[in-house]
Amino acid sequence: MDNLDRLKSLLRRQQLDALLVTQPDNRRFLSGYTAGDMNISESSGVLLIPRRGAPILCTDFRYQLQAEREAVGFEICLYQRGLFPLLKGILAARGIKSLAFESHYFLHQAAIKLQKMALEINLELVPVTDLVERQRICKSPVELAKIRAAVRLNEEVFLEVYQQLKPGLSERQVALRIETLMREKGAERPSFETIVASGPNGALPHAVPGDRLLREGEPIVIDMGLVLDGYCSDMTRTVVLGRMDEITRERFRLVRQAQLAGMAAVKAGATGREVDRAARQVIAAAGYGPAFGHSLGHGVGLAVHEPPSLSMRYHRKLQAGMVVTVEPGIYLPEWGGIRLENMVVVTESGCENLNEDATFLDV
Amino acid sequence: MDNLDRLKSLLRRQQLDALLVTQPDNRRFLSGYTAGDMNISESSGVLLIPRRGAPILCTDFRYQLQAEREAVGFEICLYQRGLFPLLKGILAARGIKSLAFESHYFLHQAAIKLQKMALEINLELVPVTDLVERQRICKSPVELAKIRAAVRLNEEVFLEVYQQLKPGLSERQVALRIETLMREKGAERPSFETIVASGPNGALPHAVPGDRLLREGEPIVIDMGLVLDGYCSDMTRTVVLGRMDEITRERFRLVRQAQLAGMAAVKAGATGREVDRAARQVIAAAGYGPAFGHSLGHGVGLAVHEPPSLSMRYHRKLQAGMVVTVEPGIYLPEWGGIRLENMVVVTESGCENLNEDATFLDV
Repeated sequence: MDNLDRLKSLLRRQQLDALLVTQPDNRRFLSGYTAGDMNISESSGVLLIPRRGAPILCTDFRYQLQAEREAVGFEICLYQRGLFPLLKGILAARGIKSLAFESHYFLHQAAIKLQKMALEINLELVPVTDLVERQRICKSPVELAKIRAAVRLNEEVFLEVYQQLKPGLSERQVALRIETLMREKGAERPSFETIVASGPNGALPHAVPGDRLLREGEPIVIDMGLVLDGYCSDMTRTVVLGRMDEITRERFRLVRQAQLAGMAAVKAGATGREVDRAARQVIAAAGYGPAFGHSLGHGVGLAVHEPPSLSMRYHRKLQAGMVVTVEPGIYLPEWGGIRLENMVVVTESGCENLNEDATFLDV
Repeated sequence: MDNLDRLKSLLRRQQLDALLVTQPDNRRFLSGYTAGDMNISESSGVLLIPRRGAPILCTDFRYQLQAEREAVGFEICLYQRGLFPLLKGILAARGIKSLAFESHYFLHQAAIKLQKMALEINLELVPVTDLVERQRICKSPVELAKIRAAVRLNEEVFLEVYQQLKPGLSERQVALRIETLMREKGAERPSFETIVASGPNGALPHAVPGDRLLREGEPIVIDMGLVLDGYCSDMTRTVVLGRMDEITRERFRLVRQAQLAGMAAVKAGATGREVDRAARQVIAAAGYGPAFGHSLGHGVGLAVHEPPSLSMRYHRKLQAGMVVTVEPGIYLPEWGGIRLENMVVVTESGCENLNEDATFLDV
């Protein structure tokens, strides 16, 4: 049963006539339509999935040919005066009386318009938050193969750029080299803005690569991901050019120990909170607790950040087939940072590490 | 009076105690904080601008140092368990009784949480849609200088890549070359995904560069923009390698005539609809009306697409200091497309063309 059929049977069980899909990754998951959104206010299309009859992709003139080519089995409807007038006609024609919409990816302003329309045509609106996300959370073998390929390409790009690293290159130059190489090697795009944070800049977990030049002896945090055939990779390595001093080595090994502890705790049935804690207590025991201010990891798939979460606030259980990052770090203002990030697949008995190369992890 | 002071006096006039700013460009405009959002569900921070007292930037651990460095004059508050618990405390401490929020950049799901909190603390919520956008719509001399610099760099990159174009390069290679060169020359990033659409692919106004190889004699649509010091450029040229055949030349000149007619219609006091019509009727008169399916142009500033709009549905008047694109095009399935796009500044008597080079426009 494919993604669309599973959703339709879910709609039947919940007695919903249709779902309006606005979230771009959900849209791609269900339809194969690959267009991205400029942002939430500039959508390249919306799916209407009725529990009976052909699914519909509503878009505009600019995307018509792409939609027809990619969204196989979908009826393509074009709006000229915005989505709502078009939608109103379709809902009436299809006899849809109850419509679910994605509350977590629907603007307040748009919801007001939708509610106004619903009143006019006597439509029941049902906000939902993770109907499609729940379907996406465990990966199929086909999806896992795509994620594996993305991780492999990520490692290949990292290794090639690593060999070119030298003091005097700027963070920005390195980031640009990484992103260019990704795309030369066939990635659609980076899955997020590449982080290259050298020396003290490494103390910002979300540093923007700047004009600072790499120097010998400093930790350099490189966090990079790419999108290949729709699926994301996400990997962080921290490297030192030249000799690593003792304090850096000690902190590096601490973060690696925390990562191994986190990976050892991953298995179907463990909660996100438990896994986070397993890694966090290693860092806390060494006195660096406050320096690890973010959560341990997140799901990866069509989106680079998606459920589940490995964090103190995530009490749900992991399931086999989920793909998560394990990325502890410590960040010390003035000094810098160290973060190490792998991706793993949750299995019944533990996890499978997708990053096979440990060259940059065991120092 | 700076951006923040103008907003505060607007809040006073509208008797609002504070505005919650979630839209990333508005956030940068008011605070100088340059962090982008991964997407609307993964914000790098929110501003709370009270009409009295210091403005506040709420963010998380990962962005703390960047926030402190960039958002001068702002109090930085960190959330650990999400925005709302933090906000609740701040609103109480500051005695804020009425809070405006950006309905056009606020998720339905988040609005429900906000409404729940508002009930608990007896807070009046006021959805607004363009409080800050209205401030951004006419550009200051400082902003115009930044936009000019972005346009100049855009032309420089285009010219350099143009000289390297040859049959056999793929669309993807050309797009990658453009985006790499932008960044090598100092751009923060492309302002949108570069379009390189050759031959029949040009019939998709929003084509994604693919593996198709450039050939002689075909129109190649190149639509590119960059971000320099926060401000965007946006430019389209259509080029032919080798000889341009008669039908292509005729269509090219038609689009250029439409562009000139559009630019001639731009001035303070003209409506977006009037300007759109001036260009559209040139194309319609030649029998290509249905092939021009999008609007004529849009505002450009911190966002690459922002108000005003040059379209049939935009009835408001242009004002001096607005910056808009003028980009007519024709798109013919099977054959391909031609689009020409300049950026202009609206003046009292007409407009100033920001793209000085007409080499690729007059054939």
